[in-house]
Amino acid sequence: MALIVQKYGGTSVGSPERIAAVADKVARMRAAGHDMVVVVSAMSGETDRLIKLAKSVHPEPPARELDVLLATGEQSTIALLSMALNRRGAEARSYTGHQVHILTDNVHGKARILDIDDKRVRDDLKKGRVVVIAGFQGVDEEGNITTLGRGGSDTTAVAMAAALKADECQIYTDVDGVYTTDPRVVPQARRLDRITDEEMLEMASLGSKVLQIRSVEFAGKYRVPLRVLSSFEEGPGTLITYEEDEMEAPVISGIAFNRDEAKITIRGVPDKPGIAARILGDVGRGNINVDMIVQNVGADGTTDFTFTVHRADYPKALEILKQVAQDLKAREVSGDDKIVKISIVGVGMRSHAGVAGTMFKALADEGINIQMISTSEIKVSVVVDEKYLELGVRALHDAFGLGEAPAQGSPAKGAARS
Amino acid sequence: MALIVQKYGGTSVGSPERIAAVADKVARMRAAGHDMVVVVSAMSGETDRLIKLAKSVHPEPPARELDVLLATGEQSTIALLSMALNRRGAEARSYTGHQVHILTDNVHGKARILDIDDKRVRDDLKKGRVVVIAGFQGVDEEGNITTLGRGGSDTTAVAMAAALKADECQIYTDVDGVYTTDPRVVPQARRLDRITDEEMLEMASLGSKVLQIRSVEFAGKYRVPLRVLSSFEEGPGTLITYEEDEMEAPVISGIAFNRDEAKITIRGVPDKPGIAARILGDVGRGNINVDMIVQNVGADGTTDFTFTVHRADYPKALEILKQVAQDLKAREVSGDDKIVKISIVGVGMRSHAGVAGTMFKALADEGINIQMISTSEIKVSVVVDEKYLELGVRALHDAFGLGEAPAQGSPAKGAARS
Repeated sequence: MALIVQKYGGTSVGSPERIAAVADKVARMRAAGHDMVVVVSAMSGETDRLIKLAKSVHPEPPARELDVLLATGEQSTIALLSMALNRRGAEARSYTGHQVHILTDNVHGKARILDIDDKRVRDDLKKGRVVVIAGFQGVDEEGNITTLGRGGSDTTAVAMAAALKADECQIYTDVDGVYTTDPRVVPQARRLDRITDEEMLEMASLGSKVLQIRSVEFAGKYRVPLRVLSSFEEGPGTLITYEEDEMEAPVISGIAFNRDEAKITIRGVPDKPGIAARILGDVGRGNINVDMIVQNVGADGTTDFTFTVHRADYPKALEILKQVAQDLKAREVSGDDKIVKISIVGVGMRSHAGVAGTMFKALADEGINIQMISTSEIKVSVVVDEKYLELGVRALHDAFGLGEAPAQGSPAKGAARS
Repeated sequence: MALIVQKYGGTSVGSPERIAAVADKVARMRAAGHDMVVVVSAMSGETDRLIKLAKSVHPEPPARELDVLLATGEQSTIALLSMALNRRGAEARSYTGHQVHILTDNVHGKARILDIDDKRVRDDLKKGRVVVIAGFQGVDEEGNITTLGRGGSDTTAVAMAAALKADECQIYTDVDGVYTTDPRVVPQARRLDRITDEEMLEMASLGSKVLQIRSVEFAGKYRVPLRVLSSFEEGPGTLITYEEDEMEAPVISGIAFNRDEAKITIRGVPDKPGIAARILGDVGRGNINVDMIVQNVGADGTTDFTFTVHRADYPKALEILKQVAQDLKAREVSGDDKIVKISIVGVGMRSHAGVAGTMFKALADEGINIQMISTSEIKVSVVVDEKYLELGVRALHDAFGLGEAPAQGSPAKGAARS
C-alpha cells in the first residue's frame, strides 16, 4: 500500500459533478488501502471571478489583500471535496495552507515554499483519514496569507510529496500525459511513458504547459516521482524520471514550440565590452523578460545583436531599443513579431553528435529559412517565420521518428545519427 | 480621538459600490484621527450561495467542513474592503479569525468566543493602520476553523471592542436604530436614543432582529458601549446602555411582537409534581423549543397546561402531546397556530406599579381577548388572536405614549401610572 499525493486542477474540480467524480476516484484508492493526500486548486473560473471583483474596488489591488481574496478559492474547494469524500464513507479533513503551515517567503502573488509542517498530515493519515490540502497558498513568517502564483498548486503537491516522502505525486490535468509534440499540430504525436525532469523543464518553458516549471524543479531537487495523468480518462500518463535512473534515454524526446515571441535586432553597435549589458539592462528595467539572445562575431568594430521577447512586450521593447540605438549611435533597429520558435529537446543529445545537423537538414529540405539558432545542453531552438510552424514541427517529428513506438536502439536514435 | 470598532453586515457590503461607500466612511473617520477597527460579514447572498454549493455535494454537510467553506465569505469581504481603504489612502490590513486568533470552543456552526489575541491589532493601530477583521469566524484550540452561527459578526465586533477596551462599538445595519415598535405596524413608532441592554435582549428575543442576542449579552458582560446605526443614512442611531448608568429610564421602552408562534393546551392532567417536566421533556426530546409556559392553579385534582412553540414545530409538537395526553390520561389536547405574542418591554416597570393593568385595559378597550399572560421583571407578554396584532400593538403604543418625544417625567411614565 502506497502513500500517494494527488493534485487536481481547476477544471478537474470545476463543478459539483466534477468534485463528486474526484471524490469517487480518491475514495476508491483509499478503500484499496492507499494513504491519500489530495491537493486541489480553485474551481475553474473562480480565480478570474475574484480578480475581477478585486479590480472593481481597486484598479491595482494591493498584493497582500489580493492573496487574502484569492486564497478563498482553494479553501472552498477543499471544503467541498472533503464533504464529498465524507459522503462516500472516506473520512476526510481539509486544511488551508496556513493550517498545515506551508511556510513561504513574503513575496505576495509569487511566494516560494520554504518549509512544510507535515505532522498534522501524518497524524491524520495514521487515523485512516484522507487529507485534503489547499494548493497555491501558504503563510509567511508573520502569518500573512501568501499565494504561489498561477499553477502553484502543482508546487504545493510536489512539496507535500517531498515532505511526506510519498511513493508518487500524481498531477491530474485535462491532458493524459506529455506528448512528443502538440497533437493538434502533428496528429501522429505520441504520449511519452517517461520523460526526464530536465526535458520536462525545457518542454514546459517552451510552452507545453502541462506542469508548472517550479513544480518540476522542486520535484527534481527532492527526487519526487511525479506522474502527469488525465482526470477524465483512465491511463498511465507520463512519469517524470531523473536522469541517473535512465539507462537508455532516447536522443530526442519531443518537439516544443512557442508562438508568443517576437524578435528585435539592433545592428551596427560598437563591438566592445558592456554593450550587451547596456542593451539588456534598459530592456530589463522596462520589466520585459528576454528569452533567446544571439550575438554574432562582429566586423569593422561593430556587431549585430538579436533577442526575443514576449509578443505582448514587443511594441514597448522596440520603443526602448530605438532610444538605446540613438544613445549608442547604432546603425539600425528592426523587429518582427511574425515569428515562432521551434525546439527539439532530449537528454540523449548530450552523448550523441549530429542532432543539430539532422534538425537543420530537415528544415532545409522543406525550404524553411532559419533566422536564429540557440542551443543548450539538451535543446536546440530555431526561430523561423511563423507561417512555417506546422510544416517545421511535422518535418522534425518525422525526422526524429517520434511517431513510432520507442524500442532498444530506437528509430529516434537512428535518425539522430544519420 | 477615540478607538472605535465598527461592524458592517452583509447588505452594507453587498456589492463593490457598497464596499466603496463603507470605505469612504471609514477612511473619513481615520482621517479625523480615530483608531479604526472594522468587522465585516460576508457579502449578502454569499452565505446562502455557499450553503447551496455544500448541499450539492452532501445533503448534510459535515459541520467542520461547512465552517471551512462558510469562512471564505468574510475572508473575501475583508480583502475587498482593505483594498478599497488602501485606494483611499487609508493604510489597511485584513485579518481572518485565525490570524487575530479569535479562539472559540469547537462547536462548529455555533462556536463561542473564548479569547482574542489583540496584540497584532494594537500594533497595527499604533502604526496608523485601519484593521479589518472577518466577523463570524474563529479557530478552536487545534486550529480548526469555526463559525459563530448567523449574526455572529456582531459578537465578533463586541468581543473585539471588549478586548481592545474600545470607546464605542458601532453596529451598522439596514435600520437606523431600535424603534419603540415595528414602524411598518405603527407609523408613529419612534427611534430610541438609548435602550438598556436588558430591554434590548427582550426586544431581540421577541423578534426585533436588529442585533444578535449573544452580542448584546457579551456587550453587557464587558460593559461595551454599543451603538446601532444605519449604514445608508446619517444619524445617531440607538445607544445600548447599562442600567446603573440610567438615572431616568422610561417605564416602557418598546413594544415587541412575534408572529411565529403557536400554542398548545393540554387539559385535565393530574395536578401533581413532575407533570410539567414530563410534558416538556417529551417535547424537548423532539428538538422543539418551548417559549411561553402557563399553568394555572388546578381544581378537582387536575390542571391545565399551555405553552407556545415555533409555528414550524406546531404539527410535530401536537403529535407528541397527543401521545403524552394518552399516557397521562389527560382530558383533552388542543392547539391554535393563529396567534401572536405581544410584549411591552421596559426596565422602568421594575419600580413602577400598574404597568400590566394599563396594558390589559388598553387591549380590553379595543375588545381584544387575552388568551395567555406571562411576565418577567422587565416584560409583560400576552397571546392574542393573530387578527388583533396591528390593532393591539397600536393601542399599546398609544397607551404608553411611545410616539411622543421623551422628557423628564415623560409621557410614558404618566401613561404607565394611569
